[in-house]
Order: sequence, then structure tokens, then C-alpha cells
Amino acid sequence: MKPFMGPDFLLENETARELYHEHAAKEPIFDYHCHLIPQQIAENKKFANLTEIWLGGDHYKWRAMRTVGIEEKLITGDADPYDKFMAWAKTMEQLLGNPLYHWSHLELQRYFDIGEPFNETSAPYIWDKTKEMLASDDLSVASIFKKFKVSAVGTTDDPSDDLLLHRSINEGKAPIGAIGTRVMPSFRPDKALLVQAADFPQQIDRLATAAGMPIKSASDVCAALGKRLAYFVSQGCKASDHGIPMVPFTLASEGEVEAIFQKALSGNTPTESEIDAYQTHVMVFLGKEYAKHHVVMQLHLNSIRNLNGPAFASLGPDTGFDASHDLPLAAKLSGFLGTLEDSHELPKTILYTLNPKDYYVIGTIMGSFQGDGIPGKMQLGSGWWFCDHKDGMADQLRILGNLGSLPRFIGMLTDSRSFLSYPRHEYFRRILCNLLGSWAEAGEIPLDIDLLSLVVRDISFRNAQRYFG
Amino acid sequence: MKPFMGPDFLLENETARELYHEHAAKEPIFDYHCHLIPQQIAENKKFANLTEIWLGGDHYKWRAMRTVGIEEKLITGDADPYDKFMAWAKTMEQLLGNPLYHWSHLELQRYFDIGEPFNETSAPYIWDKTKEMLASDDLSVASIFKKFKVSAVGTTDDPSDDLLLHRSINEGKAPIGAIGTRVMPSFRPDKALLVQAADFPQQIDRLATAAGMPIKSASDVCAALGKRLAYFVSQGCKASDHGIPMVPFTLASEGEVEAIFQKALSGNTPTESEIDAYQTHVMVFLGKEYAKHHVVMQLHLNSIRNLNGPAFASLGPDTGFDASHDLPLAAKLSGFLGTLEDSHELPKTILYTLNPKDYYVIGTIMGSFQGDGIPGKMQLGSGWWFCDHKDGMADQLRILGNLGSLPRFIGMLTDSRSFLSYPRHEYFRRILCNLLGSWAEAGEIPLDIDLLSLVVRDISFRNAQRYFG
Amino acid sequence: MKPFMGPDFLLENETARELYHEHAAKEPIFDYHCHLIPQQIAENKKFANLTEIWLGGDHYKWRAMRTVGIEEKLITGDADPYDKFMAWAKTMEQLLGNPLYHWSHLELQRYFDIGEPFNETSAPYIWDKTKEMLASDDLSVASIFKKFKVSAVGTTDDPSDDLLLHRSINEGKAPIGAIGTRVMPSFRPDKALLVQAADFPQQIDRLATAAGMPIKSASDVCAALGKRLAYFVSQGCKASDHGIPMVPFTLASEGEVEAIFQKALSGNTPTESEIDAYQTHVMVFLGKEYAKHHVVMQLHLNSIRNLNGPAFASLGPDTGFDASHDLPLAAKLSGFLGTLEDSHELPKTILYTLNPKDYYVIGTIMGSFQGDGIPGKMQLGSGWWFCDHKDGMADQLRILGNLGSLPRFIGMLTDSRSFLSYPRHEYFRRILCNLLGSWAEAGEIPLDIDLLSLVVRDISFRNAQRYFG
Repeated sequence: MKPFMGPDFLLENETARELYHEHAAKEPIFDYHCHLIPQQIAENKKFANLTEIWLGGDHYKWRAMRTVGIEEKLITGDADPYDKFMAWAKTMEQLLGNPLYHWSHLELQRYFDIGEPFNETSAPYIWDKTKEMLASDDLSVASIFKKFKVSAVGTTDDPSDDLLLHRSINEGKAPIGAIGTRVMPSFRPDKALLVQAADFPQQIDRLATAAGMPIKSASDVCAALGKRLAYFVSQGCKASDHGIPMVPFTLASEGEVEAIFQKALSGNTPTESEIDAYQTHVMVFLGKEYAKHHVVMQLHLNSIRNLNGPAFASLGPDTGFDASHDLPLAAKLSGFLGTLEDSHELPKTILYTLNPKDYYVIGTIMGSFQGDGIPGKMQLGSGWWFCDHKDGMADQLRILGNLGSLPRFIGMLTDSRSFLSYPRHEYFRRILCNLLGSWAEAGEIPLDIDLLSLVVRDISFRNAQRYFG
Repeated sequence: MKPFMGPDFLLENETARELYHEHAAKEPIFDYHCHLIPQQIAENKKFANLTEIWLGGDHYKWRAMRTVGIEEKLITGDADPYDKFMAWAKTMEQLLGNPLYHWSHLELQRYFDIGEPFNETSAPYIWDKTKEMLASDDLSVASIFKKFKVSAVGTTDDPSDDLLLHRSINEGKAPIGAIGTRVMPSFRPDKALLVQAADFPQQIDRLATAAGMPIKSASDVCAALGKRLAYFVSQGCKASDHGIPMVPFTLASEGEVEAIFQKALSGNTPTESEIDAYQTHVMVFLGKEYAKHHVVMQLHLNSIRNLNGPAFASLGPDTGFDASHDLPLAAKLSGFLGTLEDSHELPKTILYTLNPKDYYVIGTIMGSFQGDGIPGKMQLGSGWWFCDHKDGMADQLRILGNLGSLPRFIGMLTDSRSFLSYPRHEYFRRILCNLLGSWAEAGEIPLDIDLLSLVVRDISFRNAQRYFG
Repeated sequence: MKPFMGPDFLLENETARELYHEHAAKEPIFDYHCHLIPQQIAENKKFANLTEIWLGGDHYKWRAMRTVGIEEKLITGDADPYDKFMAWAKTMEQLLGNPLYHWSHLELQRYFDIGEPFNETSAPYIWDKTKEMLASDDLSVASIFKKFKVSAVGTTDDPSDDLLLHRSINEGKAPIGAIGTRVMPSFRPDKALLVQAADFPQQIDRLATAAGMPIKSASDVCAALGKRLAYFVSQGCKASDHGIPMVPFTLASEGEVEAIFQKALSGNTPTESEIDAYQTHVMVFLGKEYAKHHVVMQLHLNSIRNLNGPAFASLGPDTGFDASHDLPLAAKLSGFLGTLEDSHELPKTILYTLNPKDYYVIGTIMGSFQGDGIPGKMQLGSGWWFCDHKDGMADQLRILGNLGSLPRFIGMLTDSRSFLSYPRHEYFRRILCNLLGSWAEAGEIPLDIDLLSLVVRDISFRNAQRYFG
């Protein structure tokens, strides 16, 4: 019997405990993909209370609250912050088996030194204690970065962003001052790709303004994106990110692509295959640019979004109404990667999916594009969003090991909007150490701590650091 | 080493054993979806021998017997009941790892107090002992309901059924007399939806007769179904059920739908997209009616049926020739649920699938439609049919926990044609208790028996009771 | 703590150890499907060094080396054999969790009596020791067959092959002399099916020459294949094999099929549905022929091949650039099998898939075609290629047990090009024994060694021997 989420949480054997406590726990964090808001970093934000930092923008929690029957007023409504907090406390015990249960407790433990179970009984005490602690400088953004040894964070940014906040942070000129954390912009040009969106013409206008050039054609879109990418790279950008549901792959002539672009720009909605053709054209261009600039390409696949019409109308996107899609991807993904490989312009690539049925397909397709002497050039991203939990991470690690090279895995990222999410790296590392430890003690791999600790440190931090350069 | 299927079967830790024996085992059964025959309940049926009750209509067992090489005469043929029983005994040891192995032994243990392994050697003794016991009143339907504390059963009924048997049972006027078990009809209008079936016109005639109105249009189909649903509700119906392979979602105008209906009624087969459009039209109507009447909507997805032509010709449907389908469902399911949600007429819904690849998609799509202050309004149904076994139930529980709220799960149902199936609830509860116990002893959730026993009792019985009202 | 890959490797309980060491380990090997080269058997080939036997043609290893960043020159290039060997040694420690790690160590243990971990440090010693041993007669093909009690191997052969090598081996007239191993040809007519291939006309010419008849129509293709199959059967062929990505199922008239054939023969590429129609026509013919000749039909489904254009151009097929596909298969597979069943001409069939998402679909569809009094007539093939590892084999065994009859499973095959692969049978048997042992010790099945040892021996060898006759 082990204590509730005690020091050896998830570590079920001696080797795992040694690997975690002596090695993994000591590594810094390279959080290469997240959704932190640069403004909050720059101003060294402090938070008023747990409701603000926990429930302010966390649609994972909102969704869980709806599931257990909490009324919307206490979720996204204008209820009192304390009442919302208590509604979350009430939700908590309905989440046994859900990653939110572990995440929330790890956050209470690591940020606030609170070890007891969070529930309606303990909630008032926790509210008071955390409020007091949040008021101190110990939980400012700078203090959090330092406490968790956050070496780098990769934010998610629109190509039209001026990145002035990134610059002022990295130059030590923002209010937060000089911090040891590199804040790297990531290039996420979804809006230039969503040719079917009602606001596509306006998005193109924004891009044109940012790039300082008129955009009158699909070629101009590419040129403008290329200019913005070059600027991003000059500001320390090491990665791009794409959130379209599926990698596109419909080859079309330049003329056809231009016609689709003109159709969309004039306010007409393109067909499915036209959308795919336009996106293929721009994505192939971008893939080559990424290769040229040594920028990592991240593809987040098989999501389906904004499913609940009334909720979307009242709350907008990213409010808890998204899901795993089940589109087939082998043909399109291999076609797209193959096109870039044909001209030897395939960049380093991380492939994420919101549907674990895709792990075999991604894991084996990416195995067909490894090479160039780059260890782990193609990566299967860590369990993403709905797959980001104990079972999901363990599955991803095992399947990656079965199909490719686990020791060359670049490991965990938070993908989070919250400064409280760094314990997710700890959670991941515990699962990793437990897996390796269980293999070693079963005699399936050598019980060689020198070897295993190297693997653990590599996956915890060093592989990512090397990969992003 | 544990004894073969002993008292602690499937309970691998102390907490699991306490949760099961002290809490889960004591809860009644709310079997909200099954295929029991009301006539057999009404007459308080007794069974002549194990062949009748075990092999009479159980296509799971028939299929298993074919798999190990038993000739058809001993399965569905006119062989002597004892010879069929011996053929099943011979099959048994070929089913290590198959749920039929556990189910059959649990049935021998709980109904007949027979604890030894069932095989060709023990079979003759078992035949004699069970035959004697079946002759006593201890194994009549009423005695079985009482023994297993069956609080309610939900049968599966065609809209044209007059439900007179349900009424006489529930009023205590059937031969079975007053029993504590509520027998609830479920509304299963598949035949009014299968517009492509050769007998569609006749099915529409039957519906018209039952509804006491002519059916000359798709609107009339809806009206007639609405009338029958209202009648079902007046007779205690709390749930509907749909067995079409995939949730339809093709929006069409009323005029188009009427044309499809007329085409089918005149004996012409509609196209795939016409079928989908007609079914969408009727399903959207029904969904709204279910919401109005507070009837739970059950959708059983991704089955493919009657695959073996010669077997279908000689034996008909439901004889062991069905399989898991692999249709994609994210787009259609989210579109269909979204349409009902748009007008705030989405009923409580239970989503089952015959293909476990769908759990992530269903579990996350349903998370996008939770709300209205109803705890667990949208449910991922327990492992269905080919997924209904130890590994499948454990997977379903874990994935549900990962993606939503396990403590709000309405739990197990037999989905069975047999009065011997109640130990499947025990089987499920043991797996549930084992999962929670293993988490608690590993320190992943609090080892708090008050909390965990509440969860266990809720999932075993109370959540379902509340959910169906 | 267990020693690294010691005698009880993968055997986690007492019953498993007894089942493996006392029973499974003693059974011969019936390797019913592999890619051994008959010429190497006939000449009783000996190998110069580990690079030749390990890295000469093993695209699994090539792919792994690319993944960890080895340059191509050291993989398929003209580098010194020793340098290639050292590059493989360097790769090894990056493969913790990959089946290549276990396979390579089992091979060192069983063929060369080398028990220590293989890495850059131990590599030079291993090179020297293995080179010496390879030079002795103890590691000729004949010695390997004898050492591993290889009762039979099923090679993979084109219909135009004259099978003279098979004949000379089986008659004891080849240089290898009289060996106790039956070398059975398998009929793999992919080239006559790939109507879309650029070299289709030439392949048809080759087939015509082999069959000694002109081929001017699709009917002629069938007739020629039928002649070759009859010849194969006369030479001991017991199985066919098909490597097309998906089972075809598009019914077309004979006239339509002839038109497609003429189109292809005249150098025009058929459409997707034409390809499917032609393949369906030929596959239905072949299925019936297999049934007539009692030849087992093997279908290897859901692969996608030669994804990397530049690599294909420089290295050709089967060089490590293939992947799991994600085509849906329920509709086509059930339609195809159903068509053969309609005329009672469905042969024994083994269904493999490269995507584990298909296990439920295959396992349940095949359950709809069991029968004819043949135990396990339809088989779910053991984990294939990317699924052929510890987790994948355990999953396949468990799912097969859940859905059908595990004790009737025909078990493992190497599917390998290498004479070093026989320990994969050991690997499989250990996993099987561990699964059964864990069930027995948990009280989930009887702890009855007589029963379990029979199951283990059947699955290890006897079921396959009976199945192929």
C-alpha cells in the first residue's frame, strides 16, 4: 500500500525509483510547445486566487464540470470565484481515473505544498492557503520558471504577430527582467490555410499587413508566409505548428490553386477537394521553408472542433467542445511527406494525433522517412490532449519503443495555457522511469543504471534540447 | 495461487476484495437493456434442462461451437439435447480466454452451486444435477429475479407491440404474480428506419395498424412513431434502442425525404445516401421526441450483420454470423448530436460500439454534449457484445475514466436473451472493484473506503436507477 | 530482479515456467510461412560473418539504423562489413523496447552461446567469436534446421517458379542432402494481380511461359494460375500467400473484367475500381481453387509500401520504407469471404493485418465463416511485421482468446528471410505460456497442467501441423 500520490507515485519498482529520483527529477524542462501568453510572461504575472489560475481559461476543467452536472454559470458564467472553486472541488471526486485528478493534486503539492486530497471538505482551507501563497513573489511567473528549471518554452504565435514581447523578454528588457528561460515563438499559420473560413479574406489582409506586401494570389500567400517565417527565425523560432484536422494531400497545378484562392478571396466557399488542394500547395511550400531554416514542423492531426453549436455561439472556440476525429491518414500523410522527401526538403517533423488508432500508422510511416544522419529526425509526439494521461502516455511510449527508437524520443511538452502545468513533465518522467525500471527488473533490458539513466536524462531534457538546437 | 474462480475471482488486492464483498455485491441489479422475452416472464417460465436454457437461443455459444469444429447438427440441428450439451462441454476447454468460459462457470456456480470446471468429464454429473434443480421452483423466472435482486429489466420491443404482457406483469396480473421487478419496455423502431429492407412496406403497414392511422408519407411515419412512443411511455418505457450500423447524418429537405419514402414504399431500393437522408430525418424527429418524453436514446453502432449467406438462408438472423464494422463515425455522430443540440432537444444518450477503435471518438464527442446540469447526461455504454469480456470491460472503464467521469457511469447491462445472465453484473463489478482497488493501493487515488464504496455502489446500481428515473 | 534475458525470460510465474520449459520448449517448429531462399537451403549455405547473416538483407535493422542517425553508407552502402557491424552495435542500445533488441540477443544466445548485452563495448569480441563459429559446420543451414527441430518451412514463391530446388531438397538430392525438414513452396501470385503495375504485361508473359499456354484474357490468367497451382500442389504446396494491401471486393461482369485486362495489357493504367474489380475476379477464382486443392489462403492486409521515392529509386523494394495502412476492411473482407462461402468454396484462411485496429474486425468476421467441422478453419494470423513484438503478440493472443478459440490457434511463423530467426518461435511460446500461466495462477482458468500443456503444445506445433496437413 502506498500513500496517496506520495514521493514514489507511479514508481512501482526500485529501479524506477532510482531512475526518477536520482536522474530524471534533476533534469531541467525544455517545454518546446505550449500556449502560454507572452504578455503574462513579460509582466511577470501573479494570480489572485486558484479560480483565476486554475479555471480562468482551462477548458479541460470546464468540460469535466459539465460532465458531472455543474451548471454553466459556475463554469464560465459570472458566479463568484469562490463558488466556482467550490464547484470544481465538488467535481474533483467525480474524476477518479481522469488525468485532471492527478494534475490538480500534483499542482497543489508542487506549487503549494498541499498533500491532502482535494475535495469539498478540504477546499475552504486550500482556497485560503493558496490565496496567501499566490500573493507572494514565490509564485510569480519568474519564480515558477526558476523553481521548475524551465530552460525554454515554445509559445504558439500567428505569423502576423510582431514578436516584440518575445524580443523584450529574451533581451531581459520586459518587466520580468533577466530570466534563464528562453521564450521561443512558434510559427502557426493555420489562418492562412483555412481557406474555407468565413474570415479568410480578413486573415489574408492581416498577413499582408504584417508581411508588408500585397497578397493577390496563392503565390503571394506563400511569399508572405516565407517572409514572416524568416522574421520568426530571426527572433529565435525553432518550430512551427499546424492544427488543421488532417494533413492535406491533393496535388493540383498552380493555376488550379490560384483559382481556388481567388474563389475563396471573393467570398465563395471552396469544395472539400479544393480546400485540400490549396492546403497541400501551401503546406508543401512551408515544409520546404522549414527544412531550409531548420525549423521543426509540428502537425497536430485528427481533431474535430466546435461541435456544439449553441456553446460555440455563446462561448466561442477552445471552450471544451472538441473531440478526436477518425479520419484515415496513411495515404495523405505518406503522400505529403513523400513529396517533400522527393526533393530532399523534408524538415524534422513531430506528428501528434488526437486518436490513438493512428499510432501504428504514424509510427511506421515516420519510420519510412527517418534518415539524413539525424537521430530521431521524425518523431511521434507525446500523448496529445485527450491522449495526455497515464495510460495514454504509457501506450505512446510502448508503441514508440516497439516501432522505432524510444531512447531518441524528444519527450514531453505541456501544450498548456497554464503556468501550473510543469508537473506534467514530472508525471511523464515517472511513467517513463517506471516503464524502463519494470523492463530492467524483469530482465527484458539490462539492469545497467549507467545506460538507463542516460536514456532517462536524454528523454527528459537533452534530446529535445539537441533536436531544437 | 488462487483457486479456480473462487470467492475472490478477479479481485487482486485487499481493497478490491473489501469493495466488492462489502459493497458492490450487495447492490440490486438494474438491467436497463436486455432481450428477455416478456412471454417467458409472464408465464414464470421454467426450463427443462441446460440445453434449453443455455443453448436454446444463444448464438454466442453456437458461434464458438462452430469455431472449434462441432458439426452444425449438434449446434442448431435436431440432435438430442443431451448430445448438444456434450458437444458444448467439449467446446468449453477450447474457450480458455473467452468470456463464455467465465460466464458459463459463473452460471453453474451461482444458479446451481457447481464449482468444478465444466468439461467432458464433469458434464454428465452436471447434466443430471442441473436438470433436477431446474425442475424445482428455485429456478423459475420469479425465483431468479428475487435471488439476484433484479430491480428492473428493460426489454426490447417493436413499436407495434401492444405491451399487454408488460402491463399484466407490472400490474401483478400475469401468472408470475406480483414480483418486485419492474419490466420496462424499450422502444426499438429499427424496422421503420430500414428503408432499404425488402419488407419495408409490410413493416410500415404493421406500424400503421398499431398506430391506428394510415401512413402515406415520411411525415406519417414520424407521426405514427410519435403516437407509439407516447403509448410506450405510458407503459413505463424509459429508453429507446437503435441497432442500425451507423448513426445517419445526411440532411435533406422534407420534399427529398418524401420522395425517398415513396420510392421505397413502391418497392425500389434507395441509394446509400438516400437511405442515410431518410434515416436522418426520422432519427432527428425521434431524438426530439425522446427529449420531450425524457426517454433515454441508446445507439448501438458499428455492427455488420448476416455475413454468411448460406447460414442466413437456413437459420435466419441472430444465429452467430455478425461482426464488428469499421465505419468512421466522428463526422456523422457529431453532426447528428449537434443537430439535436442546436434546438436544445438532445435527449440523454448512451452510445455503444462494436468496435473498440471508436471509444476515443465517442468518449470525446459525448464530452462535447454534456451539460444541462445532468450528471453523465451522455454515456459511453459498457463493452457491447464482442467487447463484453474482461479485457474489454476493463478497457472501457479505463478509457471512460481517462476521457470523462467514471464515477458517473451508469454501469452494466446484460443485453442478453437468457435468464442465466445476471452473473455478468457480478463479473463487471469485480472488474470495477479491482480497478479502483488497484489504483487506491498504488496511491493513485485516495484509499478512502467511504469515497470508493460510494463510487462502487453508484456504478453498480444507483447511477442507472437515477438515470432512468 | 531477474537476470538479463535469462532462462526464465518473459516467464513471470511458476506455471508459465513449467509450461514453457517442460512442454513448449520441447516441441518442433512448423514454420509455415517465411521468406527463406531455396537456393541457400539447397546449397547448405554457411555465412562469413554476422554482417552477412544479420545485416545482409534485413530491412528491419536498416530502418532502425536510419532512425538512430546512422549514415546510409554504413547501412546499405559499400562500407566495410566490420564497420557496418559496429554501426549496428551502436544502434542496439537505442532500441530498448524494440523487438530487434530481443531478437538479436536471443540469436546471440541460441546460436552462439553469447549471453552478455550486445553493445559497442562487447561488439569486437562478439564479432570474433561469431565469425569463428560461423565457419564451423554447426551453423550451416542443415545444422540450424536440426538444432531447432524445424519440421517444415513454407517458402514464398512466384507461380512461374519451377520449384526444382524444392524438389531436389525434398528428395534429398540437393547438396544439403537428406534433412528432416519439409520445404514447402507457397503460391504467391501477387504479380498476376497487380494489374496497375508498369510491368504487368511482362509478368503475364512470364506466367504464360511457365504455364505453357498463351494468355490473351483474364480467363487465361485464371487458367494459367490454376495450372501453376496444380503443379505447386503436386510439389507439396500447402498454402498460398497474398500481399496486396487490401482484399478486393468489386463485383463486375466477365466482360467488364476482360476489358480491364485488355486495357492493362495494352499499357494503360486502370482506375481504382477497375483494379479492384479485376483483382476480385481473380481472387474469387483462386479462392475456389484453394478450396478444391485444400490449400490454405493467407491474406496479408493493410500494408502501404515503398513510401520513400528517392530510397525506392536507389535501393528498390523491401529496403525499409513500408508502413501500416489504415484502410477500412470490414465491408470488403466480409463481401469477399461471403462470395466464396455462397458456393461453399471458402478455403481455410489465415488473415494477417499490419494494423492492430483491424483485429476486432477480422476476429469477428472470421467468426462468421467458421464451420465445416474444421477446428479453427479461419485463423487470425500472429502479429505480423510491425506488430510482431512482445506487446503485439500478447495483444493478438488475448484478442483472439476474447473473440474466438485461442486453443485452436495455429501459432507462430517467422515470416523471415533469415536462418537466425527461429528463436522467434521461442519468444512467442514464452509469451503464450506466460499468458496462460498468469490466468491459471489468478484462478481465471483451471490450474490443470494436463489441460494447459496440451494447449501449449497444440499452439506451439501440433495445430499448425494438423492445419496444413
